[in-house]
Amino acid sequence: MIGKDKIAEDFQAIQRHICDALEQADGKGKFVKDSWKREEGGGGMTNILMDGNIIAKGGVAFSAVHGPTPDKILQKLQLDKADFFATGVSIVIHPDSPMMPIIHMNIRYFEMSNGEYWFGGGIDLTPHYIDPQDAKYFHQALKDLCDRFHPSYYTKFKQWADDYFFIRHRQETRGIGGIFFDRLKADSDMPFDKLFEFVKEVGYLFPKIYTYLMNKNAALPYGTQEKVWQAIRRGRYVEFNLVWDAGTKFGLDTNGRTESILMSMPPQAQWEYNHVPAEKSKEAFTQNHLKKDLNWLTFEA
Amino acid sequence: MIGKDKIAEDFQAIQRHICDALEQADGKGKFVKDSWKREEGGGGMTNILMDGNIIAKGGVAFSAVHGPTPDKILQKLQLDKADFFATGVSIVIHPDSPMMPIIHMNIRYFEMSNGEYWFGGGIDLTPHYIDPQDAKYFHQALKDLCDRFHPSYYTKFKQWADDYFFIRHRQETRGIGGIFFDRLKADSDMPFDKLFEFVKEVGYLFPKIYTYLMNKNAALPYGTQEKVWQAIRRGRYVEFNLVWDAGTKFGLDTNGRTESILMSMPPQAQWEYNHVPAEKSKEAFTQNHLKKDLNWLTFEA
Repeated sequence: MIGKDKIAEDFQAIQRHICDALEQADGKGKFVKDSWKREEGGGGMTNILMDGNIIAKGGVAFSAVHGPTPDKILQKLQLDKADFFATGVSIVIHPDSPMMPIIHMNIRYFEMSNGEYWFGGGIDLTPHYIDPQDAKYFHQALKDLCDRFHPSYYTKFKQWADDYFFIRHRQETRGIGGIFFDRLKADSDMPFDKLFEFVKEVGYLFPKIYTYLMNKNAALPYGTQEKVWQAIRRGRYVEFNLVWDAGTKFGLDTNGRTESILMSMPPQAQWEYNHVPAEKSKEAFTQNHLKKDLNWLTFEA
Repeated sequence: MIGKDKIAEDFQAIQRHICDALEQADGKGKFVKDSWKREEGGGGMTNILMDGNIIAKGGVAFSAVHGPTPDKILQKLQLDKADFFATGVSIVIHPDSPMMPIIHMNIRYFEMSNGEYWFGGGIDLTPHYIDPQDAKYFHQALKDLCDRFHPSYYTKFKQWADDYFFIRHRQETRGIGGIFFDRLKADSDMPFDKLFEFVKEVGYLFPKIYTYLMNKNAALPYGTQEKVWQAIRRGRYVEFNLVWDAGTKFGLDTNGRTESILMSMPPQAQWEYNHVPAEKSKEAFTQNHLKKDLNWLTFEA
């Protein structure tokens, strides 16, 4: 029987594996490890890489916390008092080059003393410049993984990501989406150990995808125009995370560890009033494709 | 009898007055005027100054909108359907120099077809580096104005600002506060026309305060260290506005005009993981004084 300690242990191994893979692909940056304890129980380790060759600011965080369930969760779930345990790995990588995408990955497991439990997670990609070939590669890799576990997963979780990573006040998606899932429980179709395997595979897929993109795109040329656009897109990333991201809002609302939650902030961002990319520019191409319900597997520019 | 049209007219005159005063003090920057209409009724004019001598990015917005009251307001007020009218002037100025403070001012009037109405507003100052003399000057100017209208106003509205402009997840204030008030109605102490006069005086005080600080501080020397600290403080400004500012949240939630709401964003901001100023540095002095309940009128460093 797989218990919460085994899940936390495997998640922490995924954190280590990812940090090693990213350091190797970056070639210069090293993760600084920041261990912390939570007063009410548990703790975590937030690994931060700054000023690498390719990665400008990257965070790979592990946590395993427990204690009395925060009232906000109990209210939301309409449950009586219970203890909880939560463990997860969260990643946001901000690359130096505007030709590289921002990436986010999260896997998490939650359980309560009343028997309630679920898995959640996802990966989504936020290119500063959308490259249809990369988008196809990315979504194909996610689909291949999903298809190995359940025929409905990719379609369902791709839709979920489109809906979740949406900047409502801009009416645009954060990037080209990916997969997102929450409250997954075992059922007759999907035993617990297979579900856990799926979640772990999401974690292990992340460094394959991102190191592929690092090797492919990090050396592409760019200039001032691309850096300005990157800074503006980073501003939109900030807007999504601080205004709409349920995890961020929940963390800040329930007295979570601020520095770990906000490791997702870009190293730098900029805002211009009413910025509109020039017609037919490559910036406009990206802007016009920050939309839900695009099929990146078959997309033709 | 002062009606809503007169209030909107006087508010718009305050916008013009402020833009003139800021342009004159800046000496280079000019406001670009962006008029907009609201589909459901009314509209506004958002004036933006970019890349001035002193002002890096400043917004002075006027709006007067009306129509069916958004459901979110009705729910909050536990009211049945009614039409509303709202007018206001909102300002955020991000200076180029880290030796100059960010400033925010807002005055607003809201009324509903059921007879409900109120005034709100305030001014608060966010120095990148707290200067106790400037803080005293700023709070004294607010107190002098408040005292001319009501003996309890300054104490009450200063406390309200401390509580409102608070970055809860950082346990720090946004800056040195100022005054904040909301839901002010006429009563036996304060007739409607006097209340309206008070609100307008807040508007007219703003350019006196800020042009004084522009003349005094804009030419102070600084270097890279100060620019980095400014960018980090601007990041905190973003965090407050996107996570906690009720006006911003409400606007983005109710399909308000995004560009006008987010004119408060700084031209540029930066985030470092777990940034802590060096002990006894002037950055640490500022960080240590981002606290509620400091009496800036009598403060001694």
